Amino acid sequence: MPHDRPPRLLVIGGGFAGLWATRALANAKLRITLVDRRNHHLFQPLLYQVATAGLSAPDIAAPLRHILGKQHNVEVRLGEVEAIDKHRHQVLLRDGTTLDYDLLLVASGATHAYFGNDQWAPHAPGLKSLDDALALRRRLLLAFEKAEAEPDPTKKAAWLSFAIVGGGPTGVELAGTLAEIARHTLRNEFRHIDPASAKVRLVEAGPRVLSSFPEVLSLKARRQLERLGVEVHAGTPVTAIDAGGFHLGERFVPARTVVWAAGVAASPLARTLDTPLDRAGRVQVQPDLTVPGHPEIFVAGDLAALAQADGRPVPGVAPAAKQMGKYVAAMIHTRLQQRAAPPPFRYRDQGNLATIGRMAAIVHMGRLQLSGLLAWWFWLAAHVFFLIGFRNRLVVLLNWAVAYWSYQRGARIIFGDADGGEDPDDGSSPLRK
Amino acid sequence: MPHDRPPRLLVIGGGFAGLWATRALANAKLRITLVDRRNHHLFQPLLYQVATAGLSAPDIAAPLRHILGKQHNVEVRLGEVEAIDKHRHQVLLRDGTTLDYDLLLVASGATHAYFGNDQWAPHAPGLKSLDDALALRRRLLLAFEKAEAEPDPTKKAAWLSFAIVGGGPTGVELAGTLAEIARHTLRNEFRHIDPASAKVRLVEAGPRVLSSFPEVLSLKARRQLERLGVEVHAGTPVTAIDAGGFHLGERFVPARTVVWAAGVAASPLARTLDTPLDRAGRVQVQPDLTVPGHPEIFVAGDLAALAQADGRPVPGVAPAAKQMGKYVAAMIHTRLQQRAAPPPFRYRDQGNLATIGRMAAIVHMGRLQLSGLLAWWFWLAAHVFFLIGFRNRLVVLLNWAVAYWSYQRGARIIFGDADGGEDPDDGSSPLRK
Repeated sequence: MPHDRPPRLLVIGGGFAGLWATRALANAKLRITLVDRRNHHLFQPLLYQVATAGLSAPDIAAPLRHILGKQHNVEVRLGEVEAIDKHRHQVLLRDGTTLDYDLLLVASGATHAYFGNDQWAPHAPGLKSLDDALALRRRLLLAFEKAEAEPDPTKKAAWLSFAIVGGGPTGVELAGTLAEIARHTLRNEFRHIDPASAKVRLVEAGPRVLSSFPEVLSLKARRQLERLGVEVHAGTPVTAIDAGGFHLGERFVPARTVVWAAGVAASPLARTLDTPLDRAGRVQVQPDLTVPGHPEIFVAGDLAALAQADGRPVPGVAPAAKQMGKYVAAMIHTRLQQRAAPPPFRYRDQGNLATIGRMAAIVHMGRLQLSGLLAWWFWLAAHVFFLIGFRNRLVVLLNWAVAYWSYQRGARIIFGDADGGEDPDDGSSPLRK
Repeated sequence: MPHDRPPRLLVIGGGFAGLWATRALANAKLRITLVDRRNHHLFQPLLYQVATAGLSAPDIAAPLRHILGKQHNVEVRLGEVEAIDKHRHQVLLRDGTTLDYDLLLVASGATHAYFGNDQWAPHAPGLKSLDDALALRRRLLLAFEKAEAEPDPTKKAAWLSFAIVGGGPTGVELAGTLAEIARHTLRNEFRHIDPASAKVRLVEAGPRVLSSFPEVLSLKARRQLERLGVEVHAGTPVTAIDAGGFHLGERFVPARTVVWAAGVAASPLARTLDTPLDRAGRVQVQPDLTVPGHPEIFVAGDLAALAQADGRPVPGVAPAAKQMGKYVAAMIHTRLQQRAAPPPFRYRDQGNLATIGRMAAIVHMGRLQLSGLLAWWFWLAAHVFFLIGFRNRLVVLLNWAVAYWSYQRGARIIFGDADGGEDPDDGSSPLRK
């Protein structure tokens, strides 16, 4: 590599970590390539709104090329990275091309995981990408259609039985919104079912929902969920899932629609780095976010496993990913300028918000604890503020305004033939005894 | 059927004809079932905007259940009709159920047709549904990505070569908008290609584009297209299409992206009616829109073939479909009230609008002929006014306002893995000599 050309930084992943690092290096003497298998940055905190038909997919996504169009030291490359060869300083794309790097940032994030129960995947889809969200929207809306067309009362009830597995923020948001849809949005629209009779169950194996919050807020969240019509089951593990329902401990619960919000695992790309991983497959990084023995390789975002000063892991949330991305950029800046390295990465907890449904949320920031309507306004303002793109903010606000006046959800569109023939299975359940 | 229950009207298709008929019968003593294989009414005149990433799919669609939720004599049934049995007064759905009727309105519309060249379909997709629009959006955006990643200059040029086959309103809109995207929207976003160098060809077999307009407006439309950067080929038929390009008369033109906007044919359901069809497969209806010998079966919208007083066919446009739908409703009203039937259906031409691209359109209404900016404002107002749903109108207006200030298009999101590995073929063209 000739010495007069700037070093090549390859960034894998255009999520919060990769994108924030790239933008913070706008003035650095680097040749940056950002590679992602999707053409857009996704505002994942609102993904559940796309799944529940409150927002359109493009409302919460922005093309990476557009975000970075004016940053002249970056090129965006669409492609899926299959492997990293840290000895040759190369990555291999699925289409066969290789990309060389001098510096590498791996920020390919996480995906949902079934922890050894991959056979549950077809019956309990997860929610990580826009495609997941559209598939889930289709499933949720079709369930009501199937119930409407089904003459058999038992089968009808199974179509009107929904379960969300996992009581973290995504599970809580999905359960709350789904209960609202059943009770309000779909009211008056069916002739052979009462959508409000739908059962929405939220199942959490641990003792309480939203366990990253203080116990009192967790309890308030549970009460808000119940007020919205959600049946909360905490402390009960799901032990089996199939097309017809699931086992809650020993009991079989019929349910044609089960959503998986229980666990994430690191992107499989981490394994090709050949370095110690934690149980969830995340890379155990040094305090400066590099890979042990490879100061030229950084890992940031959901893919990085790192303990905070108090021993607790840095959480897999958007603010942590952004902070890591900016930290990596600062590290690279100091190296380019041959200055002393900054102190080890430290996660600054800016607070914790979770929304539950219509006008219900909880907020925890230092000593501030809010719940209910005020927390919801707080949540709304924070999320709209952090959305990328002026147009997106306007459209999202407008959608929400209309939704909260009218209870209507603007994106209730089922793509693909919405016909009964496509149903992947008949709902017969070997679990049912 | 007991005499004290209202007669059953079955409406097949929730497009303009079916939906307008259903709504006009809100106060009729009928049990109406509206069956459609999609859950939404689609505002087709703006479908090209979804394909070209200007609008999200839900912006131009509204759930049929919601539109008709408060009309208590209607139920909406999601399902695909496979056959009509006019002797048993039944229709058969794909999922095996049958629905009985006393009165039937068949308004299942049209689909794109390749007139005996079905082998062109995979290489030149058409645009009739939201799924078509999303698939086309994906293809158009991926073509620029492929060009960016392709090192070979000849292959790169083929990815930057686009052709629209068919110079009717859809073809003209797509060509104009695509030229705008290449020249403006994508400017500065790529590093290895100049999107503005993309070739956009509009190919029309007939002597001129927009042939339903007076010749002088047609010519103005052509000039506006050329000003936007479109190469217009009129009077030249496309004689072959494959993955690598197409034959324009004798000449082979390399092009990895060809869009079919050339022809429509009636929904295949018409064939199961066992009644005379025209060449495009449409039902030759009586002047009162009934099927000969079956006064209980009406056909309306794109599926109906009917001559106007001057001998020209009623055009396959949204206003004609709405007028037919309302006429059928009026016919049914008079029958229920045992009044005299209204005079035969007469199409009232309210004028003809076509948009071409950024601030360019043509308008023909009686003696009024407009082109350019004024015509474009006219087109915009008319289309936003006729969109169903308050929210949709606001969102669409907002999207357009932002688009026309910034040249940005809010829905530039590629769904699915956007990776190169998925390419269905390698672009090798047996047509190329």
